Amino acid sequence: MSSKVTIKEIARRAGVGTTTVSRVLNDHPYVSADKRQRVEAAIAALDYHPSQTARHLRGSPSGLLGFLTDDVATTPYAVELIRGAQDVAWAHNMVLLVTDSGGDERVAEAAVSVFHERAVEGIIYAAMYHRPVSLPRGLSDLPTVLANCFLEDGSAPAVVPDEFDGGYHAACAAIEAGHKRIGFINLWEEDESKIPPYPAIYGRLRGYKQALADRNLPFNETLLRFSNQTPRENFRHTRELMALPEPPSAIFCGNDKVAMNCYSALAELGLRVPDDVAVIGFDNIAHISEGLLPPLTTMQLPHYEMGRWAARYLMQNRGSALRPVQVALPCPLVRRSSV
Amino acid sequence: MSSKVTIKEIARRAGVGTTTVSRVLNDHPYVSADKRQRVEAAIAALDYHPSQTARHLRGSPSGLLGFLTDDVATTPYAVELIRGAQDVAWAHNMVLLVTDSGGDERVAEAAVSVFHERAVEGIIYAAMYHRPVSLPRGLSDLPTVLANCFLEDGSAPAVVPDEFDGGYHAACAAIEAGHKRIGFINLWEEDESKIPPYPAIYGRLRGYKQALADRNLPFNETLLRFSNQTPRENFRHTRELMALPEPPSAIFCGNDKVAMNCYSALAELGLRVPDDVAVIGFDNIAHISEGLLPPLTTMQLPHYEMGRWAARYLMQNRGSALRPVQVALPCPLVRRSSV
Repeated sequence: MSSKVTIKEIARRAGVGTTTVSRVLNDHPYVSADKRQRVEAAIAALDYHPSQTARHLRGSPSGLLGFLTDDVATTPYAVELIRGAQDVAWAHNMVLLVTDSGGDERVAEAAVSVFHERAVEGIIYAAMYHRPVSLPRGLSDLPTVLANCFLEDGSAPAVVPDEFDGGYHAACAAIEAGHKRIGFINLWEEDESKIPPYPAIYGRLRGYKQALADRNLPFNETLLRFSNQTPRENFRHTRELMALPEPPSAIFCGNDKVAMNCYSALAELGLRVPDDVAVIGFDNIAHISEGLLPPLTTMQLPHYEMGRWAARYLMQNRGSALRPVQVALPCPLVRRSSV
Repeated sequence: MSSKVTIKEIARRAGVGTTTVSRVLNDHPYVSADKRQRVEAAIAALDYHPSQTARHLRGSPSGLLGFLTDDVATTPYAVELIRGAQDVAWAHNMVLLVTDSGGDERVAEAAVSVFHERAVEGIIYAAMYHRPVSLPRGLSDLPTVLANCFLEDGSAPAVVPDEFDGGYHAACAAIEAGHKRIGFINLWEEDESKIPPYPAIYGRLRGYKQALADRNLPFNETLLRFSNQTPRENFRHTRELMALPEPPSAIFCGNDKVAMNCYSALAELGLRVPDDVAVIGFDNIAHISEGLLPPLTTMQLPHYEMGRWAARYLMQNRGSALRPVQVALPCPLVRRSSV
């Protein structure tokens, strides 16, 4: 079937010229993100072997990309990362070799040696949650892009969520709905001085504070909680916030699971979401955010986009060294009914 | 590193003889499931290239298994299926080529043609939820095992969850805790006569009824509900069950999302889980089942085990035709605190 589809048809479907299609197929940099996306979508919809010629010209050896994760299975949305990478890979007639190490260093190293054996052309190394990592041995020999993680020294290209952006816009969503006292149940049990270097924790906190500052709202220490994320603690923090002399009218929860417990704790107090208290989550885990009543307003982690970005960066730099750019993608607000 | 590990070390670690290790490496049928598992675990822990020799002897061409899913991303636990398949594949020095079609038939067919191009030795075709499927064109030429789905005519080997077993043991868990009136919010909006042929729906219902019958408890139509799974409907069914003249003392929910809404509806009614009403879920979606307070007692879908089974069946039948066996794996009870 692939032989029947022409660049012309792709161009027509994408609503662009054939030159643009050709540019996308050849990873030419001068294509707008929008057009590139439309062309890739058309390629995906019409035909999945469009770039045989391009590949041939480029003399690519294996047509394989390696995808190595530390433990994707425990985070449903990290799978979106694979999908994002796959969509780009397929548009380039590449196939993903997917392995997850389950967090075991030996498995990761074995995977790397398989990638070498199979002559993969590039590797996406993805982490379960956003954090600094060390790469498994042997990986530095292969073009590698990190997704949802980064090297402390910034020596490899990395794409991560912009946690500051997420925290900022979560707080903004509450502020714009008229809230002035916004509780924040962040993701750690310790006090702020002991916060580990997880960007999700400190990045979102900085964003939350900045949003308040930008609106001339005071930062109130008593409204900030750190939960170890057990259901019991999430309940306790919600109850304690609501028992304050001046309780918050909105609660920003460090993730959707905290929000799930927050809903229940509020229900037990006879309080309604959002009429009595607004709630905002983080992560957009659909099982929870769409499943709660009312459906949860939350922040989207850009897993799909990180996967796309990582694969595209590998494709755009085939045959040349990867500049170690550090990219943070926004965590957009997903408006539902809890604010 | 692989060259350093001997069959002896694997045998020692697994607590078996070297003959057993050799049998596992050669897919010999006379090995108990327990020993096979221990050997595979030892192989995985010590070394990931143990079967080079076996492979060489067998003359396997590509060392690749294809894994094709319709839309794994939307079901977090389906990823366990990939992990199960991967664990077996790795123990045989095979690598998985993972693709998901997003439910698009054209993508699925393109994936199949990639599998042909890459000379995969076998394919696992997995569905998002347990149901009858038709295979993408071209797949019948390759050794294929279906996981979490099946062909209506039973002409290909298939491994699925034993939904009857799950429904049966869910009801048993409630009965054994002393409950006699057990509500069941099943997964469809229509009445029973219109139930579509989804094994999750009718299989669990049959299991539930059988468990009641086996304990001489009456089946009570008013305690059976069918929910379209929207949060609002899940709430409504919970409220209506609890408003019955003789309300249930336990509610079996068709999945963990229904259970999440059931918890909230009960909280709004001022009812406590499990003291006032016991709740049992299905699926064991950890984000929900571990995240609820009290943590949810639920039934495990055997995704990991289905992935293992499918990969092992391919490995055990390399080079020979696959008998179209139909296997149903149990959905064990995961005891937490809601019953």
